[in-house]
Amino acid sequence: MRKWWRGLAPAVVVLLAALAVAGLRPATEHGQGRPQLRFGPGGVFRVALFADLHYGEDAWTDWGPAQDAASDRVMAAVLDAENPDFVVYLGDLVTANNLPIPNASLYWDRAISASRSRGVPWATVFGNHDDMPFEWPPEWFSPNGVPPLRCPPPTMSTPDSGCSFRGTPRIDLMAAEVGANRLSYSSSGPRELWPGVSNYVLQVLSRRRTRGSDDHDPALLMYFLDSGGGSYTEVVSSTQVKWFHSQSQFLNPNGRIPELIFWHIPSTAYVKVAPKAKSEIRKPCVGSINKEEVAPQAAEWGMMDALAKRPSVKAVFVGHNHGLDWCCPYEELWLCFARHTGYGGYGDWPRGARIIQVTEEPFSAVSWIRMENGSRHSDVTLSS
Amino acid sequence: MRKWWRGLAPAVVVLLAALAVAGLRPATEHGQGRPQLRFGPGGVFRVALFADLHYGEDAWTDWGPAQDAASDRVMAAVLDAENPDFVVYLGDLVTANNLPIPNASLYWDRAISASRSRGVPWATVFGNHDDMPFEWPPEWFSPNGVPPLRCPPPTMSTPDSGCSFRGTPRIDLMAAEVGANRLSYSSSGPRELWPGVSNYVLQVLSRRRTRGSDDHDPALLMYFLDSGGGSYTEVVSSTQVKWFHSQSQFLNPNGRIPELIFWHIPSTAYVKVAPKAKSEIRKPCVGSINKEEVAPQAAEWGMMDALAKRPSVKAVFVGHNHGLDWCCPYEELWLCFARHTGYGGYGDWPRGARIIQVTEEPFSAVSWIRMENGSRHSDVTLSS
Repeated sequence: MRKWWRGLAPAVVVLLAALAVAGLRPATEHGQGRPQLRFGPGGVFRVALFADLHYGEDAWTDWGPAQDAASDRVMAAVLDAENPDFVVYLGDLVTANNLPIPNASLYWDRAISASRSRGVPWATVFGNHDDMPFEWPPEWFSPNGVPPLRCPPPTMSTPDSGCSFRGTPRIDLMAAEVGANRLSYSSSGPRELWPGVSNYVLQVLSRRRTRGSDDHDPALLMYFLDSGGGSYTEVVSSTQVKWFHSQSQFLNPNGRIPELIFWHIPSTAYVKVAPKAKSEIRKPCVGSINKEEVAPQAAEWGMMDALAKRPSVKAVFVGHNHGLDWCCPYEELWLCFARHTGYGGYGDWPRGARIIQVTEEPFSAVSWIRMENGSRHSDVTLSS
Repeated sequence: MRKWWRGLAPAVVVLLAALAVAGLRPATEHGQGRPQLRFGPGGVFRVALFADLHYGEDAWTDWGPAQDAASDRVMAAVLDAENPDFVVYLGDLVTANNLPIPNASLYWDRAISASRSRGVPWATVFGNHDDMPFEWPPEWFSPNGVPPLRCPPPTMSTPDSGCSFRGTPRIDLMAAEVGANRLSYSSSGPRELWPGVSNYVLQVLSRRRTRGSDDHDPALLMYFLDSGGGSYTEVVSSTQVKWFHSQSQFLNPNGRIPELIFWHIPSTAYVKVAPKAKSEIRKPCVGSINKEEVAPQAAEWGMMDALAKRPSVKAVFVGHNHGLDWCCPYEELWLCFARHTGYGGYGDWPRGARIIQVTEEPFSAVSWIRMENGSRHSDVTLSS
């Protein structure tokens, strides 16, 4: 097993010395390797959200590999159309409960290769399907038996792991991603937040130099949280809420820097603002599909209150519900679903990706959905 | 990880050469180390069934360790009262989904130490709770947080495994038991029956020598099957049924040798013969508690038909339902529940153990339940 502290991403410039003085722990273990994220020419930073790719389903059939190839094409189409500065993989990159191999990182790597091959940096958060043991199809115990599986050959060190069926833990998935990819801005968060792992903050620097300095101030903060599921409860914990408090107080004490939030499973606040299930989406909500009920986290331990109290927080983005793609206002911020991007996972709605575009000066955050076929819809202004 | 083929128990004397000729695979990988099981003086072979011990619950509290100590006392009382020739651990030895340690074998070992310390040989089958990952208590994500856990310190080779929460696979549990215990007659069954592991046959030799020979013929066959659950479906598979066919045809082609069957989860046939839920147990059924509905396997792939067609099969013994302890006839054999033995697991009914006593000549198989307090009840004749 990999040492968990190896290969952690140098994701955030946080002043370690200042943290030590403040008695705070940094949001991420970080190093010096990755260049800082910055707003692009024109003061724009564009993010593509790839949600619910669900790679690796039914690898022993024809349709499983075929749908993975289709997911490759969706991401390629969106990246070609939007040319984003950054990609957020919003959980459920793989369907680990359908993976009879010992290392789901093989499929995880395929998901992130869409960004890597174009040189686009990215970050990942975990969904409820990324860290799950294999669920044996009940029909494999029937007279039909087990289909021929394509398993890696057992090795001396793992003689019974040709098909191990045990799933790949979050910490291993993250270590494999971060260790092998210079463009990955993902990170294993502080150990005190385990079993949640994808808890970290990224900052995007201003295009302009700080007056009287060669430095660039941060102009956007992106918080990534692990909303659980799979190997543990679907929840943002009370400990994560405390962590968010201390991070946001440290990085953005006066709320000057706009903040965006990313996790996988909608909080119960989404249920409160949701359009009536399966009915038309009406203003102030904006979106194109409303085909199911919100499937929220198991509990709410204060994260939404923490966010609602900060005017600097502009929006929360989640995946999980493949049949929802709306944004609705909640107090002073927006709650948005991404758009089901992968051909894996339930639902036959056309695939696409939510795009977020943040402009530095004057500040604005807008969003829309780019479809696989090139069309664009559901434009919404989140802040201006 | 241990090599899976190491330490497999020499459980059954099966003629390897004959098997090769017959094109059959032996029921177990076996060696020469264990003495043959034999009927005792008087031609009697007495078996105690320890069912649903559920060791290892809530180790971070006082009540968890206290109930484990109580389970120790139940087994000691039964062993003192009955002095059995053999013990069958009928699954759910541990509650692995409540074990925040990397190796449930520590608790598994405590379960079998009751027999080991008295020099009584034993066999184990898996229940649905033995091979499960840790289930995070949802309240650990609340402001109460995670209680102080007693985890083994991380090591260089497993730096993150102080509390690993991943569960211990069947194959590792079995390898640890068999490798370390000369009195264990358990075995990892043929690989083609995986994910089921506890599939093997034991034979008990006659007290008397075969006429004109120094050999002793087998006088009883005990079949152990893995009825699944935990890391996979709760089921006896079609492949296991085929394996039983070939084993029974090979070991007992003319049905001369009486046969008993042991697994953890009742088959759907138990539902058919069950007394009306929560009502009195009436003849022909025999037992003392009938406090819940049978919780059967997910499917029936032919095992019960295979058993019912063999007059040599006298009875099936299962655990799983803590609130049931009856035996009921099903076609020409008996379907019996054990008695909840452990203080772990649901239910407050007094603890005890089902005893099976087989007499060689004239053949009879009788059973009763011995309680922790020394009382005996529910005597039933299974075959005579």
